[in-house]
Amino acid sequence: MTESTFVNKNNTKSNTASSDIVRGHLEALRSAMKQRGLDAYYVPTADYHLSEYTGDHFKFRSWLSGFTGSAGTLAVTADRAGLWTDGRYFLQAEDQLAGTGIDLYKMQQPGVPSIEEFFLSSLPEGSRVGVDGRTISAVAGEKMAESLKEKNIALIPDADLAGIIWTDRPALSAEKIRLYEEKYAGKSAFSKLEEIREEMRKHQADFHVITVLDEIAWLFNLRGSDIAYNPVFLSYAVIGETQVHLFTDSRRIEGPALDSLKALGVILHPYEDIYLIAEDPDILQRESRILLSKASVNYRLYTLLKESGFDLIDKKDPAIYLKAVKNETEIHNTLKAHLRDGLIMTRFMKWLKNNVQSGDLTEAGAASCLDHLRLSAENNLGLSFETISGYGPHGAIVHYAVTPETDIPLEPRGLYLVDSGGHYLEGTTDITRTYALGPLTQEEKEHFALVLRCMLNLMYAVFPEGVCCHNLDVLARTPLWEHGLDFLHGTGHGVGHLLNVHEGPNSFYWKLREGAEPVPLAPGMITTDEPGVYITGKHGIRLENELLCREKESTAYGKFLHFEALTLAPIDLDAVDPALLTDLDRRRLNSYHRRVYETLSPYLTDEEKEWLKKYTREI
Amino acid sequence: MTESTFVNKNNTKSNTASSDIVRGHLEALRSAMKQRGLDAYYVPTADYHLSEYTGDHFKFRSWLSGFTGSAGTLAVTADRAGLWTDGRYFLQAEDQLAGTGIDLYKMQQPGVPSIEEFFLSSLPEGSRVGVDGRTISAVAGEKMAESLKEKNIALIPDADLAGIIWTDRPALSAEKIRLYEEKYAGKSAFSKLEEIREEMRKHQADFHVITVLDEIAWLFNLRGSDIAYNPVFLSYAVIGETQVHLFTDSRRIEGPALDSLKALGVILHPYEDIYLIAEDPDILQRESRILLSKASVNYRLYTLLKESGFDLIDKKDPAIYLKAVKNETEIHNTLKAHLRDGLIMTRFMKWLKNNVQSGDLTEAGAASCLDHLRLSAENNLGLSFETISGYGPHGAIVHYAVTPETDIPLEPRGLYLVDSGGHYLEGTTDITRTYALGPLTQEEKEHFALVLRCMLNLMYAVFPEGVCCHNLDVLARTPLWEHGLDFLHGTGHGVGHLLNVHEGPNSFYWKLREGAEPVPLAPGMITTDEPGVYITGKHGIRLENELLCREKESTAYGKFLHFEALTLAPIDLDAVDPALLTDLDRRRLNSYHRRVYETLSPYLTDEEKEWLKKYTREI
Repeated sequence: MTESTFVNKNNTKSNTASSDIVRGHLEALRSAMKQRGLDAYYVPTADYHLSEYTGDHFKFRSWLSGFTGSAGTLAVTADRAGLWTDGRYFLQAEDQLAGTGIDLYKMQQPGVPSIEEFFLSSLPEGSRVGVDGRTISAVAGEKMAESLKEKNIALIPDADLAGIIWTDRPALSAEKIRLYEEKYAGKSAFSKLEEIREEMRKHQADFHVITVLDEIAWLFNLRGSDIAYNPVFLSYAVIGETQVHLFTDSRRIEGPALDSLKALGVILHPYEDIYLIAEDPDILQRESRILLSKASVNYRLYTLLKESGFDLIDKKDPAIYLKAVKNETEIHNTLKAHLRDGLIMTRFMKWLKNNVQSGDLTEAGAASCLDHLRLSAENNLGLSFETISGYGPHGAIVHYAVTPETDIPLEPRGLYLVDSGGHYLEGTTDITRTYALGPLTQEEKEHFALVLRCMLNLMYAVFPEGVCCHNLDVLARTPLWEHGLDFLHGTGHGVGHLLNVHEGPNSFYWKLREGAEPVPLAPGMITTDEPGVYITGKHGIRLENELLCREKESTAYGKFLHFEALTLAPIDLDAVDPALLTDLDRRRLNSYHRRVYETLSPYLTDEEKEWLKKYTREI
Repeated sequence: MTESTFVNKNNTKSNTASSDIVRGHLEALRSAMKQRGLDAYYVPTADYHLSEYTGDHFKFRSWLSGFTGSAGTLAVTADRAGLWTDGRYFLQAEDQLAGTGIDLYKMQQPGVPSIEEFFLSSLPEGSRVGVDGRTISAVAGEKMAESLKEKNIALIPDADLAGIIWTDRPALSAEKIRLYEEKYAGKSAFSKLEEIREEMRKHQADFHVITVLDEIAWLFNLRGSDIAYNPVFLSYAVIGETQVHLFTDSRRIEGPALDSLKALGVILHPYEDIYLIAEDPDILQRESRILLSKASVNYRLYTLLKESGFDLIDKKDPAIYLKAVKNETEIHNTLKAHLRDGLIMTRFMKWLKNNVQSGDLTEAGAASCLDHLRLSAENNLGLSFETISGYGPHGAIVHYAVTPETDIPLEPRGLYLVDSGGHYLEGTTDITRTYALGPLTQEEKEHFALVLRCMLNLMYAVFPEGVCCHNLDVLARTPLWEHGLDFLHGTGHGVGHLLNVHEGPNSFYWKLREGAEPVPLAPGMITTDEPGVYITGKHGIRLENELLCREKESTAYGKFLHFEALTLAPIDLDAVDPALLTDLDRRRLNSYHRRVYETLSPYLTDEEKEWLKKYTREI
């Protein structure tokens, strides 16, 4: 699945809160602001860990404003209120904000002020702006505080007004935490701790504060389900040279998970107590040097530690890199997970091809068939994200999520895009295929060929050690660029191991995001390769394989690396016009299909085998 | 020509200074050090403008040590002396330093200390290290000063001992300065000054100090010849909002050049007086904000301005970017220069092919034939660098310069590499071709095909606006990488307009050099495309075309750019095995050759036309 930071996501669910309810909420907020001496308040969309998705406990902006889109920030002063969101939500926000008195600010449109500019223009000198500093990063908080200084406006980072006025707030999720056995994780939590400590020593750090949920789950070999699709649990961790502290609702840890933490000597604390560590000499000692990442730790925790006089070392969390390079067990198991997923995709494709003529299929029905195949597979622990099942023009909506209102029948013509994945005990998968449901237009064929050429170009890349992700991205774009086409999302992202389907630091995109360090590819990294073409109102095509980075050979010019495609499922030959491919493209596709057939066929019935043979035939 | 910062350059010229003479020089140096209270002294290899090449006036390190290589730093204490140089000079340095008492420090070899480490380990606390701060950049000087602080060692940046002990020092070059007429420059010096001032205003700078020679030549539409192959003149410039100061030996400026400077209102000062500006209220006012680039200004000038209390704004010189984007006149004229150069290369190739069987040709003879063709061409103002003419194994020495000692006959077999270029009134050229002089081995054919594929891949790239040079580099390497091969230099560099053959900021290399900003390609930029393969002891292959960045089309995905090959000369089809190319490669080569024939043939005799037709035939 493409990363949401780059792309549009449709979300047409409508909040039923009437504008009167919203006005009531805003009134309560303004009254709480007055009580706390705040002249303004703003509410981003994030949990305290700045996770990609948030649980219901953290949807304060949505509750306050009535706007339910997945991205948006609400800013409120005594007499004005504004909501900032991006292009994918303009229509929805206009609709949901009507009558609430909240103005819509369309981000990235010419002339539209930023939130900082809004505060600077509407507040007098010396004002106070409040925010729940747990819902913004230290980097974002410092940037806001710096901007506001221009008018001597103070940013108050511990203003938790949700805690005061949101009376029917959903509880914090506290789902069971399970041990992820070492036979699957491939490395003990003890070894991982030692690796983290080794990195801490490199920076002369006495402590390391981790707030990112998938890093904590990875480190302790634990998995939870506090966030939809992400097998993580709400928690913070503080690692010292001898002690380890875990801050989470510990009532939900029992059995092997609890035993494992005990064996590690982990000291458990209530979730909220992370904000007390600065004053707890049993955890942090005065003058301690603390390693943390300002980009991922929240502003309140950061401010608290900084103001308590600790020496803070701002570095990327070591776990990001350690987690990204999969160990031999993880790789061995991932291959199994992909075999299972490839069989599912093959059966789904066969079912689709056989049934599309019936006229009974719809986007939702097909997604449900695919989800059922995955959820009933051996060792499946759920989907890794909500299946994207888009026919025709819906395929052009990059993060389309079918709803009863948008569902349409699959007709025996044109293109159908399915982006889906599963969590298995053996690993997490993410695959996109686009299928021809019948005859295609010449344009559809041409676009399919270009996307396929892009995917193959990157998949077959060979490169010396040291080459970075952003160096290779053009390989997956030049065939499209030559035709004046492009796709407005990254070409690929790292994939967690029974963890988040999107993880860093590896990702394919030619632009380095601001402040981002180049990431050299390393053997053991898994990254998706998912170029696409999206023609609004017509069709969308995306093809996605996961690529495992491997050593290829060592020569006089150093060590060379290449990719092994983990994803094994046919590329729909009904959509491929061989005349639109080069010799090299054809050789590459044939070689990939040969591997698909050889790997999957031993697990198929004779009839399935026959079918797969046809769909992986040489062209 | 590949940039020397990336590559090896052979230089086997031997200094005849015996070790006794060197010992005498070192004794004089040590005595001068003592007089100035210096415990150590070091001598880099650079002029006061940190130019790529230096004139004889600046070869103090060579005079002192007897080591004549183009790169090296000498460090001397009361009882020790060391010379640091890199891999391409180890043999030469060992030879030339024998008996001098100077130790050779082989850079980048394991266990070899850096110069900083040498000083820190051999000098006592509180020592004083001298350097002529005009020969190192502000960045390098600050780094050295910072390192030495560890032992409280002071770096003295104004210790010009060459001025004291080098009695037979060659004078500063003061060759004539000529006006470069606006009909060739395409823009008046007045307009360029206004553009620079506009950039200064963006940074709220009152003054801009320029010390880089090609920037000054470009800005004033003047050309000189103080440095071999680089049509520049020794000078500094200070630009204010109303005044312009030029520091150079003004006795050599007369006629139209002088008139032009007068018309611009330029105030002329002696060259050395740049070091007096801090105290001259007619030039800089107190509290002035000065824009300068710490990477290009020398340490002494920087220190002087800093210690005088000016507010220094460290930014890349605006002229770098302005100069890199060629204007319409420059582009129009460059096409003419390349047409002329293409005819020369075609005639050279024909002569070579016709005469190699005779057995009379040598590397030096062939170079001399080519140089003669260029130097006698219309509007030629010299070569843009020393012609590289390497047969067989010599082709594998990236910056091979043939000498009477190394010259070898060209035999009617194997590969011969020629990298050459010229300065014309209409622009500067740089082209490399590798020719088959007879039968090739299978390996030679395979390597030639790979290099050709690499060059074509980059040459035919299409990409959206915003894509940076470092993004595209992999296109010129993947065919080699797939075979475990690579070349250890950048793929290309910017080319000046009747200026230095190497200029920035555009260059193709997948690695971003430390501290370097990504450079988006812009229409009007000219960059070379010169991949290669170098097999020590066997052969070297490099193919180089200059590429002009142009707009291609605007689509729903933005503005797309592509390249126009400026270089027009046949790729030797005798070296091309079509079976080793893909369909696409062949189409691209044929299309390029068609353009070569169509553009050059109107200027050729019938016989030449016939010959070119054969060498640009479709394959």
